[in-house]
Amino acid sequence: MVTSYSGLPNKLLSAPNGIDYAYRDAGQGDVPLILLQHFRGNLDNWDPALVDALATARRVVAFDNAGVGGSTGTTPHDIGPMAHDAIAFITAMGFTRADILGFSIGSFVAQEIALIRPDLPRRLILASAAPKGADGIHGWPPEVIGAVGKPETSPGEYLGVFFTSSAASHQAGQQAMGRMYARTEDRDKPTTWSTREAHYDAVCTWGIPDHAALQRLSAITHPAFVANGDSDPMIPPRYSHLIAGLLPHATVKIYPDAAHGFLFQHHAEFAADVTGFLDGSGSPA
Amino acid sequence: MVTSYSGLPNKLLSAPNGIDYAYRDAGQGDVPLILLQHFRGNLDNWDPALVDALATARRVVAFDNAGVGGSTGTTPHDIGPMAHDAIAFITAMGFTRADILGFSIGSFVAQEIALIRPDLPRRLILASAAPKGADGIHGWPPEVIGAVGKPETSPGEYLGVFFTSSAASHQAGQQAMGRMYARTEDRDKPTTWSTREAHYDAVCTWGIPDHAALQRLSAITHPAFVANGDSDPMIPPRYSHLIAGLLPHATVKIYPDAAHGFLFQHHAEFAADVTGFLDGSGSPA
Repeated sequence: MVTSYSGLPNKLLSAPNGIDYAYRDAGQGDVPLILLQHFRGNLDNWDPALVDALATARRVVAFDNAGVGGSTGTTPHDIGPMAHDAIAFITAMGFTRADILGFSIGSFVAQEIALIRPDLPRRLILASAAPKGADGIHGWPPEVIGAVGKPETSPGEYLGVFFTSSAASHQAGQQAMGRMYARTEDRDKPTTWSTREAHYDAVCTWGIPDHAALQRLSAITHPAFVANGDSDPMIPPRYSHLIAGLLPHATVKIYPDAAHGFLFQHHAEFAADVTGFLDGSGSPA
Repeated sequence: MVTSYSGLPNKLLSAPNGIDYAYRDAGQGDVPLILLQHFRGNLDNWDPALVDALATARRVVAFDNAGVGGSTGTTPHDIGPMAHDAIAFITAMGFTRADILGFSIGSFVAQEIALIRPDLPRRLILASAAPKGADGIHGWPPEVIGAVGKPETSPGEYLGVFFTSSAASHQAGQQAMGRMYARTEDRDKPTTWSTREAHYDAVCTWGIPDHAALQRLSAITHPAFVANGDSDPMIPPRYSHLIAGLLPHATVKIYPDAAHGFLFQHHAEFAADVTGFLDGSGSPA
């Protein structure tokens, strides 16, 4: 019997860098899929429906990066050190090659991992992503950071950024939150205000306009699947097109009537697209 | 009674720059839509079905740029002078503001027009387009230039680049060619080998890798619709994503099972998308 992500135990891995990493380990397979979480997110912020769908076909590992949620250490203020912290976890797990799914700030970390240690990733999934230095994304619009950047955020503010105002998307958002909050025991530790500050420093630093930095993506030769919601107020789909245009081997898909949380709203379709991409059975369509 | 594009007379406009421009003028409306043709193409290489569909909603003007087909003058070896030649035609027609649809090399010219004279275009449609300096498009693959770059090209070679190998696309290609060749009288003058050489010099010059040049697109603030075939061997869709990511106000659409001639294959859908875009009634979907 397969345990749903919502029932998996929190595990702890002591890595050589001195960090104890909190993680959850789902499914089975040779090449694991590593999940890199969004701004201020911890293990409980992955939609179990998505992880379960992904884990039917492969091993899926979600973890808290250094300083986040149940992991020890300090959250760095820049993407580079976050990538080193993530590499330390992945290698301490014994993985020499992994597929990597980065979501939002996690997609920034995924790009950095691919540049710092190109032999580690096999394939990349960049969800709600933007490239370093892209014009017009130096931090998020006031209404976005004003909602999800507050000391205490509400479900309504989360829904307003991760889902659209349509009835269908709103309902999908409520269902996703219901799945995330169904777990009542052994929940992950909440992320701190220090993590929030460090994360947003890193987001703003990533977004300092620097056209030359866009060329970095030409060095990421891994097959990549770039995906975005069509109405994402946090990272508009324009940046997914930009990434897909700069990466030598990328496909891009924009999901309809969806915002930052498109991968939770369209969890079945997105999981099927990711599975097809990782299995090499053609481009998502 | 509306005359189809295939029955329109060839007209001649003497512009102040000394060039006599061959053109055809279809439909009626305030802001005209100017068509900029592909590599080696003349007035007869626009699919009448596409022009007719576009001209139901607006005035549509196709012309031969300097040195091409029925126009006098010499075809320049670079996109910049081609843009000046096109601006000379458009302004000599008395247009102070126009929508511009550039196809392939015509899309390069359209981008240059928007940069040289930003007040002239109202909205831009970039079909089978690539930005100046993009990596990996320094001329076309041997099988492409070997087919459409020969002194005499065959219908089969044209079909092989402009349509895919699927039965549906191949059939659409044969139908499009049938429409183009239905006109037997007053056809445009064929383009010369000098035009072919100049066009390909310009294509290769446009494709000299120059990452910094990509930043030029940030200055094109016009609303833009970027469109491509999903299987274009001449200009892969990656470059349309790149353009749409670099332009501040662009939407992108990739047409299925289609190559360089996606806009002829999907003429009804593309015309409807262009009409919706130009009328401001939302993004193509």
